[in-house]
Amino acid sequence: MTNLAGRTIGFIGLGLMGRPMARNLMQAGAKLVITNRSQGVIEELSKEGMTPAASPRAAAEAADIVICMLSDTPALEQVLMGQDGVFAAANLQGKLVVDMGTSKLLVTRMLAAKAQELGADYVDAPVSGGTLGAEAGNLTIMAGGSDAAFDRALPVLQVLGGKITHVGPTGAGQVAKAANQVIVGLNIGAVAEALSLAQAAGVDPGKVREALGGGFADSRILEVHGQRMVEGKFTPGARCPIQRKDMDQAMELADHLGIELPATALSRDLYDRVIAAGDGGLDHAGLIRAIRPDWPVNER
Amino acid sequence: MTNLAGRTIGFIGLGLMGRPMARNLMQAGAKLVITNRSQGVIEELSKEGMTPAASPRAAAEAADIVICMLSDTPALEQVLMGQDGVFAAANLQGKLVVDMGTSKLLVTRMLAAKAQELGADYVDAPVSGGTLGAEAGNLTIMAGGSDAAFDRALPVLQVLGGKITHVGPTGAGQVAKAANQVIVGLNIGAVAEALSLAQAAGVDPGKVREALGGGFADSRILEVHGQRMVEGKFTPGARCPIQRKDMDQAMELADHLGIELPATALSRDLYDRVIAAGDGGLDHAGLIRAIRPDWPVNER
Repeated sequence: MTNLAGRTIGFIGLGLMGRPMARNLMQAGAKLVITNRSQGVIEELSKEGMTPAASPRAAAEAADIVICMLSDTPALEQVLMGQDGVFAAANLQGKLVVDMGTSKLLVTRMLAAKAQELGADYVDAPVSGGTLGAEAGNLTIMAGGSDAAFDRALPVLQVLGGKITHVGPTGAGQVAKAANQVIVGLNIGAVAEALSLAQAAGVDPGKVREALGGGFADSRILEVHGQRMVEGKFTPGARCPIQRKDMDQAMELADHLGIELPATALSRDLYDRVIAAGDGGLDHAGLIRAIRPDWPVNER
Repeated sequence: MTNLAGRTIGFIGLGLMGRPMARNLMQAGAKLVITNRSQGVIEELSKEGMTPAASPRAAAEAADIVICMLSDTPALEQVLMGQDGVFAAANLQGKLVVDMGTSKLLVTRMLAAKAQELGADYVDAPVSGGTLGAEAGNLTIMAGGSDAAFDRALPVLQVLGGKITHVGPTGAGQVAKAANQVIVGLNIGAVAEALSLAQAAGVDPGKVREALGGGFADSRILEVHGQRMVEGKFTPGARCPIQRKDMDQAMELADHLGIELPATALSRDLYDRVIAAGDGGLDHAGLIRAIRPDWPVNER
């Protein structure tokens, strides 16, 4: 494993994803300086040897690299641009800011430009793989940024991720993540319609899922989310509103770019239908209840 | 490999798929009695040692098992129910009819009932895997029929297929195949929208496809058809009108069952759009030109 001894990393956003990521960085030898909106986790991680900072600004001042792992784009803007935010650090010149959350492309480009003005590098490096991937340190990482900035981020990314792709310049990581979420959302819809058809025709959806494995219809979604549908086990995982937000964000980007994504737009409406019916707490595989409202839910 | 020595198999429908399948059965030791609409292939296969029959009826009279591999449901009905068709065979009692084409569920159920009336077994066993799978004898086979009929068909199916699943009673194979085609068609659409978004945002679609491999967005379709889109190589493969017909057939079944498949309906319209624009000769990955009409075509 990459050795990060002697490196000081600011880590901002210690939720379900951020926590195991910060732990993995500490395990690799880095000194961690942390801030978080809620303070409970700060106490917990302080006991493990991480250093609390008074603000994102203070974390940035103490560190060479600042990693943000926040729940949404407004939270990221607040952490970077807000009062006592990272961009207010006295000595930002020469530092590296890495956003590993899923953020809007246009905001990402704006924040990266702002960082550059202040003399810092910026890499967008959103991830896929969930809390299990975060814990195992084998997240899929899609990175955008200059070659130099990416190379600089790489030793840190290698501690957190399995597959790491430098997709292109600033924002390319967020575009890849948007593409990822579009495929995931639409493929869940594909499996939902296929299994609904089978069930309505009186054929065991579990047997159909099994028959399709290994063929052209096979996918990680058929394996994992198809199985959730078959068993009616909709414990999240990622909840429907998260997937809905991702589809919405992709649509917003498409609108800005002047292209139509008809299946993505339809999928967003279907997720709305599930949420409106009171199933927003289900894993996104619960989309099948937009097609068949009486599809059994055995676990939620 | 299963040894079919001493078995006589009637094989009806010797197109791109049927031809290599018949050859594999002969290789396994079976005697092949063949008919086909066009006669050129009959001459060719006769030279290889297969026996031409005057009609489907004559093929059925000479064989224990009759395999049909026809291009569509009307052709199957004609071969089984028509004058000099399989069901007109003098000695159908105790024989086995296996339909390996992609046929409509309701017609399948009707034909199976008719076969049973005449004392014959019927198995629907549609395949996935294309001509390459047919040649290699590793097709994915989705079978419907009684346990006894399936067991009887199995030695023959084992020569033709890699993965063979007994999905359920008569028609269950066709339902699984419809589910397969729904997922394939919709997943092509998912990859098309994701790569369109990337391209419109100025990010290399090939890099995005690469970044997504191995994650939750990964699928056989992303690998194979995603690569076709990235390279603009739309040599079929399966042409758009075939995929369109499969989506239409799934919709017809859904209508009959009284369920809505909104994404499948949308996808059918998108395939219509591609075909109307003159791109019907493209592989079904050409669906991306319904989203981005200027998507480059380097091979067709």
